[in-house]
Amino acid sequence: MNLSHRITHLTGGGSDGWDVFYKARRMISEGVAVTELTIGEHDIRTDPRILAAMDASARGGHTGYAMVPGVGALRDAVARRITERTGVPTSRENVLITPGGQSALFAAHAAACDAGDTALYLDPYYATYPGTIRGVGAIAKPVRTRAEDAFQPRKEDLAAAAPGAKSLLINTPNNPTGTVYSRQTLEGIAEVCTENDLWLISDEVYDSQVWDGAHLSPRALPAMAERTMVVGSMSKSHAMTGSRCGWIVASEEVVAHLINLATHTTYGVPGFIQDAALWALDAGETLEAEIAAPFRRRRELAMHILSGQQTVTAVPAQGAMYLMLDTRATGLTGEEFANALLDRHHIAVMPGESFGQAAAGHVRVAMTIEDAAFGEALRTLCGFAAELAGQPIIA
Amino acid sequence: MNLSHRITHLTGGGSDGWDVFYKARRMISEGVAVTELTIGEHDIRTDPRILAAMDASARGGHTGYAMVPGVGALRDAVARRITERTGVPTSRENVLITPGGQSALFAAHAAACDAGDTALYLDPYYATYPGTIRGVGAIAKPVRTRAEDAFQPRKEDLAAAAPGAKSLLINTPNNPTGTVYSRQTLEGIAEVCTENDLWLISDEVYDSQVWDGAHLSPRALPAMAERTMVVGSMSKSHAMTGSRCGWIVASEEVVAHLINLATHTTYGVPGFIQDAALWALDAGETLEAEIAAPFRRRRELAMHILSGQQTVTAVPAQGAMYLMLDTRATGLTGEEFANALLDRHHIAVMPGESFGQAAAGHVRVAMTIEDAAFGEALRTLCGFAAELAGQPIIA
Repeated sequence: MNLSHRITHLTGGGSDGWDVFYKARRMISEGVAVTELTIGEHDIRTDPRILAAMDASARGGHTGYAMVPGVGALRDAVARRITERTGVPTSRENVLITPGGQSALFAAHAAACDAGDTALYLDPYYATYPGTIRGVGAIAKPVRTRAEDAFQPRKEDLAAAAPGAKSLLINTPNNPTGTVYSRQTLEGIAEVCTENDLWLISDEVYDSQVWDGAHLSPRALPAMAERTMVVGSMSKSHAMTGSRCGWIVASEEVVAHLINLATHTTYGVPGFIQDAALWALDAGETLEAEIAAPFRRRRELAMHILSGQQTVTAVPAQGAMYLMLDTRATGLTGEEFANALLDRHHIAVMPGESFGQAAAGHVRVAMTIEDAAFGEALRTLCGFAAELAGQPIIA
Repeated sequence: MNLSHRITHLTGGGSDGWDVFYKARRMISEGVAVTELTIGEHDIRTDPRILAAMDASARGGHTGYAMVPGVGALRDAVARRITERTGVPTSRENVLITPGGQSALFAAHAAACDAGDTALYLDPYYATYPGTIRGVGAIAKPVRTRAEDAFQPRKEDLAAAAPGAKSLLINTPNNPTGTVYSRQTLEGIAEVCTENDLWLISDEVYDSQVWDGAHLSPRALPAMAERTMVVGSMSKSHAMTGSRCGWIVASEEVVAHLINLATHTTYGVPGFIQDAALWALDAGETLEAEIAAPFRRRRELAMHILSGQQTVTAVPAQGAMYLMLDTRATGLTGEEFANALLDRHHIAVMPGESFGQAAAGHVRVAMTIEDAAFGEALRTLCGFAAELAGQPIIA
């Protein structure tokens, strides 16, 4: 009995740098008090007002099959949000509601690539990216970005990789680096896409978490709306990770095909969840700012702590809920450092190596615990790094 | 900008026999009182007790990422249900929770087939089957069943189509025919699968709706557990169509790969929906029987009405929420008859041609409106058929 090559080769094989993560989970299940800074999940739950809207919808009878493209009012609300934030006129025909951002990433690649096609993605990357590409039978080809560029992709690196490819996947604000792509970066990306006739799949799920500068969607650049599929989600902006409600915004033609695909892959999203999402979007930017506030605060706190020491350097934390810290001064790989930190101080962070090769010698710290504990963990991390580097501990 | 061949060729093109359905929708939106017997959706909403369990779970904080394979307790509950109904020892490691049965159908085919592989399905078929197969890049090859066999597939027809194929998709109790596959039919299917090394994908979402005989899962046949992926769902058994909660039951090895796929296609199912499903499964067979009862009642009513006339013949309605009626005595195709019935009597049923070629000259009637109206619609249908056939109207 042979399963498909697609499914048996979904992961690249070998160690994926997630050993530290699983070890932390094991320690927690054994009762060890581990400070968990690995995963991009809020330390708050979904707002009770959103849950009340969900319950009202369900009890009101919205429990049958919902329309596959999404509830009309929610598609409108997403279109309005996108129009307001990007300036690109967007209507419900440009929007497909999906069961979460991951499902949107998969659908976008299924739309762009046939089996054997090449799909580009940037290293470092969110953990599911290469497997998502392999899941549609395409070849996942990483393009390395560089720590010295704060992981802003260079046009020449993209141009070298692009010939023959079908799509490019980007993510801004970026997980895992916290980088927000500059206009110059995005213009370079747009040029490479146009010159090589690439679909641009733009993962913008952190668009409400920008601490420095402004989020620019490449769909707003000249002539890019037609070739861009924007992936969005309620997960990060509204602390609705478990509700699995996201979207793709693209041209009407692309969305028409994506609806057809959705009919055969997921058959829509629960109506009561869509009604909850609609309530949350209708609450406007105030609610989004409220949900983003703890990360903004902790990021400030982190900048303060990091300024008091010299061992650990932060990639400029412009957006998203993470810090990417350069720990190479310790002489250890990111994986070795993360392992040692977990063993010695019971603090769990993700090795940069979990996200590809470009962030080797780094660790990613999720700012997802309450401020005091977060500050203490970061101070401990810095002190431990200084100790390993044989440097004086100032912090 | 070229989209993938996969997505642009998802549907077969041409008329798909759904014109009557869309016409009925149009008439309804224009205010015409259409009796809607097209779609397999209960005339009740999800039980308020199930919704209360969902709300309690959400407010209790189960709103973050759920484990991708599914909540452990729900996987256990599905495993128990399957063990009890099929006798095959089943544990949580055999179960992946999916966002609905359609998602499970897609995942099963993604696991079985690479691009270019051939996947078999039986005609007549549920509308999404061929597109689901094409959605994984495989070739959808129908095998016709015959009205004179009450659409039980013949072993020799399967054996003729099987060489070189990778999988076979079956559905029992069957939509659209209402047929429940006999042990003999399933043994023939098992032999063909074993002889040709096919994966058997068994859609059993109607397993709680059996009116005549007993549901037998092919996973319970000798040596079939390893090569069978069973698709199940809360949709039909618990009137939770909109909740999008289903599962695949398969060997541990297959499930391990499917979990990996799910990480990259959907990233799990909302925890609060899983807790609602758990409550519903824990309520046991009584609740399922309660939800199936209206269809059982209406099927009895239909048998009574049909016995009083000679024009329309029913395929033995052994299970599921549909009647498949042979209307060839009218001299019309199923599509022509359904169209005429809609025009003249404002009753909407699905032409057999919507489900492939094998059920041409038939119409499918969903038993999804309250008993009196259902009986009246069926009497009108029979009377209209008799009128067209130039036969005396007895009913």
